[in-house]
Amino acid sequence: MILTTNLRDKMKEIDKPWSPIEVARVNDQVVRMSLVDGEYHWHRHTGEDELFYVYEGSIVIQVIGQADITLRGGEMAVIPKGVEHCPKSLEPSYVLVFEPLVLKSEGD
Amino acid sequence: MILTTNLRDKMKEIDKPWSPIEVARVNDQVVRMSLVDGEYHWHRHTGEDELFYVYEGSIVIQVIGQADITLRGGEMAVIPKGVEHCPKSLEPSYVLVFEPLVLKSEGD
Repeated sequence: MILTTNLRDKMKEIDKPWSPIEVARVNDQVVRMSLVDGEYHWHRHTGEDELFYVYEGSIVIQVIGQADITLRGGEMAVIPKGVEHCPKSLEPSYVLVFEPLVLKSEGD
Repeated sequence: MILTTNLRDKMKEIDKPWSPIEVARVNDQVVRMSLVDGEYHWHRHTGEDELFYVYEGSIVIQVIGQADITLRGGEMAVIPKGVEHCPKSLEPSYVLVFEPLVLKSEGD
């Protein structure tokens, strides 16, 4: 049985920031939705790229050694593996993250 | 240099249906955007799941042996590997597909 996932409904399942919920699995990847509110911490994922897609809101991804990346609703960016980064919100925002299932969401 | 991708801008790069353009690469996966207009053909991907996300519009994915799946803007579904399916539009629609980079987009 193939299920439909409505992202607006998923938003309602989230009750606190930085606590991703699983939205879908596809191959060896997982799609998670996270409420981005405030600032996370600087970290890197040594072996995996991480795709950020802003479903609603606007965020900044601070990246070591380059200008900040601003992402608004409908915008995405891929942080390559090994690149130190730190997301923060410009307003409370709902963000999809695509990453391998093995990835520790906390990073190193 | 990490680039930002705006899906609304990407829509403008597409000039004909069923001709996906690349939107992002993350790990061994690729994100493509396709204009879904009309009906595709029945096919399956033997080794890979395929995630459909409707960015704008509404589509139906016909799936062998189960009820049709209707996806509207902000909705997604994963077609498991091996499952025969056939997408069609309810209106001209812009759809993201997540699949492994090796996947032949035409299917078998």
